[in-house]
Amino acid sequence: MNRQQLFEEIKKKKSYLCVGLDTDIEKIPRHLLKTDDPVFEFNKQIIDATKEFCIAYKPNIAFYESLGAGGWESLRKTLAYIPKDCFTIADAKRGDIGNTSSLYARAFFKNLDFDSITVAPYMGEDSVKPFLEFEGKWVILLVHTSNKGSEDFQLLQTREGKFLYEEVIFQSQLWATPDQMMYVVGATHEEKVGAIRMLAPSHFFLVPGVGAQGGNMEHISKVGMNQQCGLIVNSARSIIYASSKDDFAEAARKESLKIQNQMEKLLAEYCR
Amino acid sequence: MNRQQLFEEIKKKKSYLCVGLDTDIEKIPRHLLKTDDPVFEFNKQIIDATKEFCIAYKPNIAFYESLGAGGWESLRKTLAYIPKDCFTIADAKRGDIGNTSSLYARAFFKNLDFDSITVAPYMGEDSVKPFLEFEGKWVILLVHTSNKGSEDFQLLQTREGKFLYEEVIFQSQLWATPDQMMYVVGATHEEKVGAIRMLAPSHFFLVPGVGAQGGNMEHISKVGMNQQCGLIVNSARSIIYASSKDDFAEAARKESLKIQNQMEKLLAEYCR
Repeated sequence: MNRQQLFEEIKKKKSYLCVGLDTDIEKIPRHLLKTDDPVFEFNKQIIDATKEFCIAYKPNIAFYESLGAGGWESLRKTLAYIPKDCFTIADAKRGDIGNTSSLYARAFFKNLDFDSITVAPYMGEDSVKPFLEFEGKWVILLVHTSNKGSEDFQLLQTREGKFLYEEVIFQSQLWATPDQMMYVVGATHEEKVGAIRMLAPSHFFLVPGVGAQGGNMEHISKVGMNQQCGLIVNSARSIIYASSKDDFAEAARKESLKIQNQMEKLLAEYCR
Repeated sequence: MNRQQLFEEIKKKKSYLCVGLDTDIEKIPRHLLKTDDPVFEFNKQIIDATKEFCIAYKPNIAFYESLGAGGWESLRKTLAYIPKDCFTIADAKRGDIGNTSSLYARAFFKNLDFDSITVAPYMGEDSVKPFLEFEGKWVILLVHTSNKGSEDFQLLQTREGKFLYEEVIFQSQLWATPDQMMYVVGATHEEKVGAIRMLAPSHFFLVPGVGAQGGNMEHISKVGMNQQCGLIVNSARSIIYASSKDDFAEAARKESLKIQNQMEKLLAEYCR
């Protein structure tokens, strides 16, 4: 899915919501454990319940990897089940020397056909480039993450007075265009989102941390949106665990609809 | 395996060699493709051929992940096959927000029983801590990697005049002791290894990049060794693909013996 197509989906669904499939076998309703593949069964019902209201799905790869070979199979089936008009994000935070990054790219782009993958920048350009060699696929580079530890290194100031995360934005724009690269920008750094938008006017931002972690949707949308929306806001736990009972899918539906309603208003106000 | 036990193995085998199991289905001898699990069969023969001469094995997780659920199964069998007196390293370069890092830790430490995992520092302390909560397990933190892209961010200078990788060493020593943490230090930065040893006198360094990538074993050993050796030098392709024919295991044996012989001399000279 290219940038224009993504924007078309956002306009059509009046939403920039990404549903995070952080599916934890220990948190899903008990009755699903009787099925052949409880993780896939849970995801399937969540996808059916939310697909009208979101434009992207983001499986968090750790949740699948922690289940071994079976988890990998649940992931494969989940990805095949996601409707083609939804953007898919492998939240994997990979990044390694060139030939190894190529293999991760093959795993997520070729074998699993994800549209995009999150990548850590610490190892530099040649660790990111192999992910950019797959046509039509996206790198979503970690810039300023939503966790507390994001202060430890990302906020270090260079001799030139730039934060490390600003240097990551600066250098990475030499590696790829906004048609191939997005940035992870945590909603918990509300005061910085506007400044980051100045540094990367055209890029889409993947924004975790709204809701439970404290980020404010209205403020983020106001300072972070561009003319193509430019935001994909992730929500995981508040949607997929809206209820821990048999009605989990219906509860997920209601929660995602509520967010979509809010986003519809914000799009009308700030994306123009 | 704790630090003293690792040093005992080094003294016993007179080696600080790690064999990198970067097992590529497209590079292994053709006759193995007829077996049920060619990747595991290859690893099994490599392990049998080299286990006298090395003290560690490091499967590069991308190679297994790129094969989907089957690759994960080959990895599980490989790990179970590695002798208990060998240190095991999951070269995974993970790192994510706390609850996600916990799941990666569970995947590699509990499900697969690796002794250690490589971790990327970009997301800071709370992304690394969950890996430190498993008793007897190790974090091997990326400090200064062997690839060209290591110059892009790791060599940025902070306002205080420190390189970013020095700041990573400095801060991470507040998170864990040398009994829980090692550092990845690329052999390609020969001129920096001695300086890094000054910053972290007691830590083990995992050293990639000797041989094909240009690092010099003698120099690295001279400037990098401490009283407990303090080095684990990785070699992958030069050992596991020493021959592409039926005699691959015998060729791997010869190559690892050759390196062990060199290491025996270097230990006698520099580790005291």
